[in-house]
Order: sequence, then structure tokens, then C-alpha cells
Amino acid sequence: MEHIGKKIWAIADCHIPGRSNGPEPEMTSHETFCFLNLSKAPANVKIMMYFSNRNPVGPYWLEIPAERTLHIRLNLLKDPEPIPRDTDFAALVESDIPIVLQQTRLDSRQSENALFSTVPFSY
Amino acid sequence: MEHIGKKIWAIADCHIPGRSNGPEPEMTSHETFCFLNLSKAPANVKIMMYFSNRNPVGPYWLEIPAERTLHIRLNLLKDPEPIPRDTDFAALVESDIPIVLQQTRLDSRQSENALFSTVPFSY
Amino acid sequence: MEHIGKKIWAIADCHIPGRSNGPEPEMTSHETFCFLNLSKAPANVKIMMYFSNRNPVGPYWLEIPAERTLHIRLNLLKDPEPIPRDTDFAALVESDIPIVLQQTRLDSRQSENALFSTVPFSY
Amino acid sequence: MEHIGKKIWAIADCHIPGRSNGPEPEMTSHETFCFLNLSKAPANVKIMMYFSNRNPVGPYWLEIPAERTLHIRLNLLKDPEPIPRDTDFAALVESDIPIVLQQTRLDSRQSENALFSTVPFSY
Repeated sequence: MEHIGKKIWAIADCHIPGRSNGPEPEMTSHETFCFLNLSKAPANVKIMMYFSNRNPVGPYWLEIPAERTLHIRLNLLKDPEPIPRDTDFAALVESDIPIVLQQTRLDSRQSENALFSTVPFSY
Repeated sequence: MEHIGKKIWAIADCHIPGRSNGPEPEMTSHETFCFLNLSKAPANVKIMMYFSNRNPVGPYWLEIPAERTLHIRLNLLKDPEPIPRDTDFAALVESDIPIVLQQTRLDSRQSENALFSTVPFSY
Repeated sequence: MEHIGKKIWAIADCHIPGRSNGPEPEMTSHETFCFLNLSKAPANVKIMMYFSNRNPVGPYWLEIPAERTLHIRLNLLKDPEPIPRDTDFAALVESDIPIVLQQTRLDSRQSENALFSTVPFSY
Repeated sequence: MEHIGKKIWAIADCHIPGRSNGPEPEMTSHETFCFLNLSKAPANVKIMMYFSNRNPVGPYWLEIPAERTLHIRLNLLKDPEPIPRDTDFAALVESDIPIVLQQTRLDSRQSENALFSTVPFSY
């Protein structure tokens, strides 16, 4: 169990849509990183954000408890700084122990929501 | 053929939407695991569910017959307990022989459905 | 170039929606397999279809010309038999040379279309 | 960091929808390649486009600066020639250093947009 997952994940397409339709917070447009920590120890996760026209921003730190999942909307990350809306970015996720990551975006800029999910590139 | 697939699959983003629009059961919001067993023997599959704020739940057991596919909506799993709606969770799938897994979610909380599908992380 | 791709691909979630909305054939619900053959020789591709409650059907045969892509809607496959609509199935794709496969479904059962795409499991 | 990613990526399903609904350019139908270059040096990227009924077209050249992401809509590529709309194609991406690629399509041919994203096949 301790070995299921990867320590490095890279997500090339991140984007937090700036507009939403529908009841909040359920239908608010969001970019979500979903973590699964299958080990008996907590995972310490460091995230760096990459942009098209400025230096990387971070690190952002998260802890994923042992045997737990965490689905976090990136718009909730505030430290060291909030992530701008309607802006292309990318992310590098590094964990001290193997974890599993899935990226899911809900885009409700139009009145009906669109949805995608990927298993990002891991290393 | 016996070797095509993996014995361990981990799905970090599971979620059964609590509302639906459109004709049932076709357009009912659902989280589906699609299994393919290419071997000449049945596959015995064990699923554990992971949550953000409580201990893992399971195991749930499934049998995938030889040379068959099984597309199962997770809301049909009742033993040891039904999976709550509108709740973030994750899953670990273990099979005694190699199988192929694909995850597909139909979200019809709004009047037009959204759809995603992934090939989960395998080990 | 000759080596880019895989000879075996397995797709666990196949489904041809039985209803559609919008102009045909563009917005007709479809399950599409997209092949890319990067080599200098044609690829001979054999597809077997797997179901939940009966024996596998096939083989279906396709040829992907050298340095070409082929995006084929599965409802066009007629030999040895058409694939039923609104039915869960899965597919095993075998090629005599490495190819790249991507699966894309357009679901227009409701008035606005939903879309997903995956890179299937390869071996 | 220099090693995170791959030098060869192959995308079998590319398609630029010919119609759009909603405010431009945000909701214009588009096929986007999202690159992430985690290294300290720029990446020189060569793209060849493959079609179903004619010879490959290209190369198209892009530079991804060091520690930057680039999300490029394929309809912006003009040299050596624009890519036709409503046409099936595929792409081979080659980089001189490892990069991460994600493909995302927004299809707004109908009044509500559909969205998918994949991590393409890498080699």
C-alpha cells in the first residue's frame, strides 16, 4: 500500500474560470486537485504554479492524512498568494511519499456545466 | 490475453452527484466503474472506499466473468454500506488477476448532462 | 517513428448512445476510435468487442495507412455484425505494428452535447 | 526537474470545430495544446500534423521558455499553413528536452460548451 502512487505529478493545463452559473458552491466553476494517500503516514505535498509570462509562484503546502482523500479547489489556496482567475497556468506537485492525483475541472461559465477529468503526467 | 491489464487501480476523484435531470435511469447522475476481463478465468475484485474525514469503508466485492465487461454504477453497491451522495471519496481496486478499468461520470445536476471518463492510475 | 505507439490497446467503457439531438452527422451521438499510424507501413488492426452477457464478437478489421490518422465511428462497423446501441461493451484492439489510439465519445442524447476523450490502457 | 516529462508525444484525435457559440475568444471552439517546461532551458518543439487522406503537414515550430507554461490554440498556427476546420487530424510533438503536454478541446458548436482534456500518449 505504501508504494501505490507517485511522488511527482505535473499538470500542464490549469485554469480557474472567472465566471459561473448555478447554485454555489456546488456549481461554481472550479479547478480541483484530488489526492489519495493510501499509506499509513500523512503525505506532505508541495505545489509550484507555473505561468506563461512570469516566474513560478509557490510553494503551496498541503497535508494529506493517512488513508484519506483530499479534493481541493485551487481557488482556496491563498498562501503565498491567491491564483488569478481566467489565467493559463500549470502545476508541479511533489510529495514526500507516493500519492495518487486526479485533476477535475467544472466549467459553468455557460448556463450548463462542462466537466473534464484527467490522471496527470507522473514521474 | 491473461496478462493484459493490472491488478491494482487507484481512483482519486469519486463523487456521486445527489441530483439529476432527464429520464431515469439513463440520465441519472452516476459514477461508473467499467471493468474488462480479457482472461479465461473470472476476476475477483475487492474495492475499498476512502473518504476525507473518516476511515476507509469496505471491502466491496465484485466478480467479473471471463471475457466479459462489467459497467457498474457505484450507487448500486450496498454491502457493507451504501456510498453517500454529494460526498468526496476515492477508491482502491484490487483484482486477483489483471483487469482493465475505466472510470466514467455522468453529471446531470443541471438540465444538460456533463460527462468525463479517465483511465485511472494503475500499479 | 516506427516504434511510437503500442500493439495492444484495451478500452473498458464503450457505449453508443441510441438517441441524438442536433444536425447529422456532426452532432449524432457517437463512440469514435482515433488511430494514428506514424510508421512508413500500413497497420492491420483487429478489434474484438466484449459484452456483459454474451461471448465476444469479432474480429472487426481495419487498415490504417502509413503516416495517416483514421477517426472511425464504431456505429459504422458492420462486419461481422453491427454493434447494438444503448449497450455496454468493451474493446480489445490489436495491431501488427505500433499505433496510437484515442477514444472519444460525443453524447447528444440531451439537447446540448457532452464530450469525453481518453487515451486507453495499452500493453 | 530537467528530467520531468517526455520528448515525444502523439495525439491521435485532433479536431478544430468549425462553429462556435458564446463570447469570443473565450467560448470560441478550440483545440489547445498545453505545454509545461520545468527545466532551466527553453524547449524547442516541432509539431507534425497527420491527416486521413493526404501527406503530413509541417513542421510547425514553437519555443516554450524555461519554467513556463504555454497553452496554444491550434487555430493560431499559420506556418507553414493554417489547419483546416472540421477536419480529422492527429499530431506528433517532438521536443529537444523533456516537456509535459496536455490536450484540451472546447466544443461550443451547440449553445452550451462541451469540454475534454487528456494527457496524450508519450514515448
